[in-house]
Amino acid sequence: MTESSPTAAVLIIGDEVLSGRTQDTNLNTIARFLAALGIDLEEARTIGDRKDQIVDSLNALRTSHDYVFTTGGIGPTHDDITADAVATAFGVALPEHPDAVAILARRYGDDFNAARRRMARIPEGGTLIANPVTDAPGFQIGNVFVMAGVPKIMTAMLEDVAPRLRTGAVVHARTIRVTGVGEGAIADLLTAAARAEREISFGSYPFGHGSVGEMGTHLVVRGRDVARVEAATEGLLAELAAAGIEASLA
Amino acid sequence: MTESSPTAAVLIIGDEVLSGRTQDTNLNTIARFLAALGIDLEEARTIGDRKDQIVDSLNALRTSHDYVFTTGGIGPTHDDITADAVATAFGVALPEHPDAVAILARRYGDDFNAARRRMARIPEGGTLIANPVTDAPGFQIGNVFVMAGVPKIMTAMLEDVAPRLRTGAVVHARTIRVTGVGEGAIADLLTAAARAEREISFGSYPFGHGSVGEMGTHLVVRGRDVARVEAATEGLLAELAAAGIEASLA
Repeated sequence: MTESSPTAAVLIIGDEVLSGRTQDTNLNTIARFLAALGIDLEEARTIGDRKDQIVDSLNALRTSHDYVFTTGGIGPTHDDITADAVATAFGVALPEHPDAVAILARRYGDDFNAARRRMARIPEGGTLIANPVTDAPGFQIGNVFVMAGVPKIMTAMLEDVAPRLRTGAVVHARTIRVTGVGEGAIADLLTAAARAEREISFGSYPFGHGSVGEMGTHLVVRGRDVARVEAATEGLLAELAAAGIEASLA
Repeated sequence: MTESSPTAAVLIIGDEVLSGRTQDTNLNTIARFLAALGIDLEEARTIGDRKDQIVDSLNALRTSHDYVFTTGGIGPTHDDITADAVATAFGVALPEHPDAVAILARRYGDDFNAARRRMARIPEGGTLIANPVTDAPGFQIGNVFVMAGVPKIMTAMLEDVAPRLRTGAVVHARTIRVTGVGEGAIADLLTAAARAEREISFGSYPFGHGSVGEMGTHLVVRGRDVARVEAATEGLLAELAAAGIEASLA
């Protein structure tokens, strides 16, 4: 893609994902969010609730991408260690943030106990990310955005994150649905298209294999210049028609 | 967990996951598969269809875990570059494997073209992984298992992979459903339980926040010694009852 598009990585923190107990959906939500802003998501890592692993992964990702988004581990219980790990990764202290204390005190009233107070600890220099669902905030420090693991809360936090991001040129995509033939029957045609137009990416995704329904291939044409995406899509449709292969825009 | 349990990492290869087009489910399938075999899944990475990124990630993961499982990028089209990248990562050639040629020739007959023949290229020293869905094989080389990205095919390939793996002691889990209170109300009780029993892990996962239905917390008690898991679960249930908190086995 273009030189100037910001790049990003995601760090999913949680034993429950690696144990198979939970099917993560946050990565997909963040991926679609970033695509709409023209930010290139280059990598995601899923790791456990282990401080050394969080510190090492975060330091690797934050130095090699413009933005890092983390999910998970910012609740009130003993297994919520993300804030501690982020503070260690940045080499800063983890004091209570007065605004976070105020937000949580207002929410919990007489039930604002020590465990809940842990959620007010924000790495020095961090700014809060609003949580309109359960109030306990996430935070931003440098190029790292630390969010909740509960999908509903994570998704809501992205609203407060969006205005802080530099955006890029959005990637446009068109999908062609090819029916009745597998990838192998259209591979040469696709390779020729990819060679002729280097600014455009051509993805090929089979569907329906091994099941009783219709089988075929989805061809996804992607690029930042919408006119070139349209032209490449039209060209591919014409090539498929000329080869007698059934295809249409999906 | 115990010293002797094998460790594993997963490498999800595919632009379609990072672009948000596709919600990955393979990681969850592999996670549950490994959990049943007593193999510790320590990390997963999701990367794009870029050869340098595949090579670097694979070399990082295969030297730090007992097993690595990859998904995606082994089809017949130009964007399927996983076999090339794996060969480069291992520093070996990528010749056609005679058994793979035979399997594909039988499947495709007169339609066995050059693009489909690409799928018979297996890194030198690799052995095939059977694909009972569409025949095109995956492969194992060293401690790396290279599988398809289509979930139905990937899942079927795991059947052929399972007998090749050293297994560990299975992690047992019990889930307690706490209703009517959030994590903050039970955090102290959970911390005390975790301190008293170091061989057991206690996870805490809120549910129902911000929605109209029931809210509460799932407590997951995990460990390799089933008796200790049961004892810790019973102990936690008793503590919750003593505190007047509604809880039951999920």
